[in-house]
Amino acid sequence: MKRFSMILGMMCLGLVMSAQTGIINTRNANDASGKILTMEETILSRDLSPENLYCRWTSPQKVMMMKDGRWQEWDLKSDTYSDYSPKAQLPEAYTVGQSLWLKTRDGKEVAVAESENSEITYGQYVSRNEFGINDGFYWSPDSTKLAFYRKDESRVTSFPLLDITTRTGSLKEIKYPMAGMDSENVQLGVYDLASGKTVYVKADEFGYDRYLTNISWTPDASMILIQVLDRSQKHVKLNAYSAETGDFIRTLLTEDNDRYVEPQDPVWFVKGTDDVFIYRTDNRDGYRNLYLCDLQGSVRRLTATDADVAYLSNDGQYVYYTSAEVSPIENHLFRIGIKGLKKGVAKASFGKPQRLTTENGWHDIAMSPDCRHFIDSWSNLTTPRVIDLCTADGKTVRNLLTAEDPTLEHAYSEISLGTVKSADGLYDNYYRLIKPKDFDPSKKYPVIVYVYGGPHSQMVQNSYLGLLRRWEMYMAQRGYLVYVQDNRGTSNRGAAFEKAIHGQCGQAEMADQMVGVRMLMDLPYVDSERIGVHGWSYGGFMTISLITNYPDVFKVGVAGGPVIDWKWYEVMYGERYMDHPERNPEGYARTSLINKAKDLKGKLLICQGAIDPVVLWEHSLSFVRECVKNNIQVDYFPYPCHEHNVIGKDRVHLHDKISMYFEDYL
Amino acid sequence: MKRFSMILGMMCLGLVMSAQTGIINTRNANDASGKILTMEETILSRDLSPENLYCRWTSPQKVMMMKDGRWQEWDLKSDTYSDYSPKAQLPEAYTVGQSLWLKTRDGKEVAVAESENSEITYGQYVSRNEFGINDGFYWSPDSTKLAFYRKDESRVTSFPLLDITTRTGSLKEIKYPMAGMDSENVQLGVYDLASGKTVYVKADEFGYDRYLTNISWTPDASMILIQVLDRSQKHVKLNAYSAETGDFIRTLLTEDNDRYVEPQDPVWFVKGTDDVFIYRTDNRDGYRNLYLCDLQGSVRRLTATDADVAYLSNDGQYVYYTSAEVSPIENHLFRIGIKGLKKGVAKASFGKPQRLTTENGWHDIAMSPDCRHFIDSWSNLTTPRVIDLCTADGKTVRNLLTAEDPTLEHAYSEISLGTVKSADGLYDNYYRLIKPKDFDPSKKYPVIVYVYGGPHSQMVQNSYLGLLRRWEMYMAQRGYLVYVQDNRGTSNRGAAFEKAIHGQCGQAEMADQMVGVRMLMDLPYVDSERIGVHGWSYGGFMTISLITNYPDVFKVGVAGGPVIDWKWYEVMYGERYMDHPERNPEGYARTSLINKAKDLKGKLLICQGAIDPVVLWEHSLSFVRECVKNNIQVDYFPYPCHEHNVIGKDRVHLHDKISMYFEDYL
Repeated sequence: MKRFSMILGMMCLGLVMSAQTGIINTRNANDASGKILTMEETILSRDLSPENLYCRWTSPQKVMMMKDGRWQEWDLKSDTYSDYSPKAQLPEAYTVGQSLWLKTRDGKEVAVAESENSEITYGQYVSRNEFGINDGFYWSPDSTKLAFYRKDESRVTSFPLLDITTRTGSLKEIKYPMAGMDSENVQLGVYDLASGKTVYVKADEFGYDRYLTNISWTPDASMILIQVLDRSQKHVKLNAYSAETGDFIRTLLTEDNDRYVEPQDPVWFVKGTDDVFIYRTDNRDGYRNLYLCDLQGSVRRLTATDADVAYLSNDGQYVYYTSAEVSPIENHLFRIGIKGLKKGVAKASFGKPQRLTTENGWHDIAMSPDCRHFIDSWSNLTTPRVIDLCTADGKTVRNLLTAEDPTLEHAYSEISLGTVKSADGLYDNYYRLIKPKDFDPSKKYPVIVYVYGGPHSQMVQNSYLGLLRRWEMYMAQRGYLVYVQDNRGTSNRGAAFEKAIHGQCGQAEMADQMVGVRMLMDLPYVDSERIGVHGWSYGGFMTISLITNYPDVFKVGVAGGPVIDWKWYEVMYGERYMDHPERNPEGYARTSLINKAKDLKGKLLICQGAIDPVVLWEHSLSFVRECVKNNIQVDYFPYPCHEHNVIGKDRVHLHDKISMYFEDYL
Repeated sequence: MKRFSMILGMMCLGLVMSAQTGIINTRNANDASGKILTMEETILSRDLSPENLYCRWTSPQKVMMMKDGRWQEWDLKSDTYSDYSPKAQLPEAYTVGQSLWLKTRDGKEVAVAESENSEITYGQYVSRNEFGINDGFYWSPDSTKLAFYRKDESRVTSFPLLDITTRTGSLKEIKYPMAGMDSENVQLGVYDLASGKTVYVKADEFGYDRYLTNISWTPDASMILIQVLDRSQKHVKLNAYSAETGDFIRTLLTEDNDRYVEPQDPVWFVKGTDDVFIYRTDNRDGYRNLYLCDLQGSVRRLTATDADVAYLSNDGQYVYYTSAEVSPIENHLFRIGIKGLKKGVAKASFGKPQRLTTENGWHDIAMSPDCRHFIDSWSNLTTPRVIDLCTADGKTVRNLLTAEDPTLEHAYSEISLGTVKSADGLYDNYYRLIKPKDFDPSKKYPVIVYVYGGPHSQMVQNSYLGLLRRWEMYMAQRGYLVYVQDNRGTSNRGAAFEKAIHGQCGQAEMADQMVGVRMLMDLPYVDSERIGVHGWSYGGFMTISLITNYPDVFKVGVAGGPVIDWKWYEVMYGERYMDHPERNPEGYARTSLINKAKDLKGKLLICQGAIDPVVLWEHSLSFVRECVKNNIQVDYFPYPCHEHNVIGKDRVHLHDKISMYFEDYL
């Protein structure tokens, strides 16, 4: 069934692209008589994802993986496998309801902090998972102390969700701090296991509702570093506090930005030192670079690329990181040597960065704990997943997996990656386009634009099929061009690109998407009267923004869980991008889709989980109400008992509904 | 613009009809080039209702009416008009929040009963407006005492409604007693104005959740008569209580029924007597007849027709009533003389019933207080509204209005009334059919069945256009046949017809509707592949029942505010027709549409007010959930901020949506 061939292969290390509308690479199928996806296959089966292998380092020499149906540990040295059964290491912390408990080394269960009432929570994540906060407690390196969050939501308003699974319809109330309204109060406690006493860190300089983000312990467990962010998210201080007393010690560095700063990472101490650490920010050189710092406040740039990088690990001699410097749609592993740290950060010497992955594409890297090996899991548009075990200098020791290409038997014509200019002419925006099965360039086809467009996203990468979602192939098999493009505001492109949306979410994003759409409309094989758009969450917001701002372009839209007005979105995310409603009334008014309902011309279907705790039901119901007020037809479908995303097998129903809506009306 | 003519006029007093599928009467338009309704006209304007005149008797000689843009009183005797400005007569009772107050003759405001907490309500209707209960307090004839309801909802569960009109989405909780669950406790208090004391009527024989219905005072104000109904609604007692002490005096009569009894009327005392009254029930002779009774327990049938009658008034010599005896779809005024009451009910003599309205059609009657005159407001299929002032013997004194026919300028083909047999062969069910504009019998047309079908309804009457809703003409003008039929369970056809649905709502109704639908499908000009169905509330329940029970017949359905499972409906209405869920589990299971969702094949749109306090949102959301579970497509549209019906100008949006759904899919 090997019926496809590469028309354009990856030519060389760099990327081949034309100037305005550059096609980077294309993957063609020779004939299109193969397998047609059903919706069940599209949603439920894995048939379009190549075979994968879940690997995780458990020790410098051992990798845990699923083998013969059970978890086994592979010993690199002896090349033998043994069964893996993890045991919790004591002491162990855990939450019970809204309280935090721990089990001591001798197995005793101790309440660290017990919740006083339903509005106080201990040991769980705070700030609605923003600022990289995913945990609620942090062990000191020597396990003698436990730092933990205390979240007080007493000033936060509640929002009622209707639970229809009980006979008389019961109520689930969630705390939801809306932009501009009262927010959480967060404190960081430090529990000392020996004394059983807790001190709270005295981090109150930015007031009641500042954020305590990215908790790090110093290696000697004497200090806690916190990136304290003010409510406006324009000022952050990296502060050191005594783990013993909670007292403020000093501010190590600060970041300020007229739009926003967004701390996302803890600091990482350099192995073998007690006071030198690596810090990442995009607030100094325009891109997320790594900086070498110390506890006295020294800061020195370590990575000097005009591209975002991500820290991975260090062994005291090399710092390992991935970076977008080869291409924004590729991820490669680098390392940089550091020497002479004993003379201090200022006098240390850095080596030349070494690129350790050579194959074009997107590399996901798992470093071994001792940094002697890494597992490189990579793919590109035309290469299904390959997983290699490599030594730290980039040499492949062993191939763990070379996946079969699962699309060999599928019917499709062409998937290509390319670029269009951003609306301000400053950037190349990347897109992915799949052409209809049995594509005939002399015919005209309808287009579906699938959009997300929001911060922290990247929809187009040079990985297997370019990150194609199976639904795109499903629709292409049914006669649609499906187009996906990243725009300003999305990630991995540096600070200016990302922050271009500040204060007016949706505006730069729409302008960029429209460059892509106009490019499509100019193509001879596109039926420019039949352009549809679909997205969920931020993409739902984008969908309704596009169909109401460009009512003569978009004939059909399907928006899922859409933000309708940022004033109903939460404080942390909302105020970062849109500022406080009182400081940015024009921005809120301009981006509000309530004001745009009257401009709707096309067919629009809105879907939402009926107990969505992320984008509250108030958003979409208010938009519907505004449409009704203006006697404008709109369609709606609630997914009862579903939250922000429709998950599980009901996703088949959702995608049937979405697809049928395009089939009926586009 | 007089472009239509009558093909078949009303032939004579009786009705001309054929045996199986009898066409009773037809109204034809000769050509169909006239006015096409817009949706705004269909919903907002009155153009299809003939001119009307609101009249109300204010004294034996005076009629209040709107004249020259203001309320005036017409004096019959002098034939003069004077401005009308009513003044409240003291004492006057009124409610403040959940408490009951009154203003005495000397203008003092007195709290009659103050609510102890949010679950106790005084002076407002109880039992969710069932059993003819529309008031919350009842003055004694001499205005010295005030009887009032006390409603205790402390055992009733609450249901949460989401109010999206506040920024953070607030909650409105309503008390909603569901079938089989704990219900209200109702008491009747009697407040004595002279003493300022209240006694409660000792009416506790049927337990905590019995119903106190149809409160009547005796003319001498000494006693209160209550029709006390048990929770099962199978037993009712007409009891007399002392207005002084609240003590039980005696039971005057009882009704028992294996299915249900449904007291709906107070008793009406015969003028000039203190102890003789008229009582209406359908539990004795198969139809709602009037009975002459007294306070000692005598009961004697007064109207002896095999048709439902409705009491109007009496002057001590004649009892005036309307009756369906001419035809179930006509309403005529009758009177019957009563003499010799002083000898007691048993020995009184009754005259022969006299019919007082002669024109075929539906007569709405307003008797003057002294029964010397009545205002007869009538119409029939081909006659727009006529309003006459008549003397008590039926002679027309003066024509107050003869309305212009507002359809003269409209484009339509034919509206006809007819009958089909009920599924059990025992009854003629009446229907109304409007044919498409430019009807051509050699073509084939799609059909929309508009259905309500529930108790206490009659959709087809021989009144102007046969009660045609303007939306039916709107759809007929767009190429549809629209069919409306009454079925077993609806009103004005006697007890057996009405109670045929007991314990299995929807079953007999569907069977009857399907006789009509099969008749339509056999018509040469009906496209039997294109049958749609639409209804709201009980009609929404019927719509989903029909499309899931007859998935091969109905291609498209639109259901509004539908009951999905009677277990979620309220105690009073629900248990009357469906019994207690524990006593009728098979009936609940058989009629539940949750169990039918899997059988849905056609296109179904469900609409519902998003704060519906009558049919809770749980119904339709649960059906949607079941469809999603079974991966069955269904469409949905919520009307935010609307209750059980979408009212006001948003109704245009609703009917556009309904109409477009049929246009898109039927």
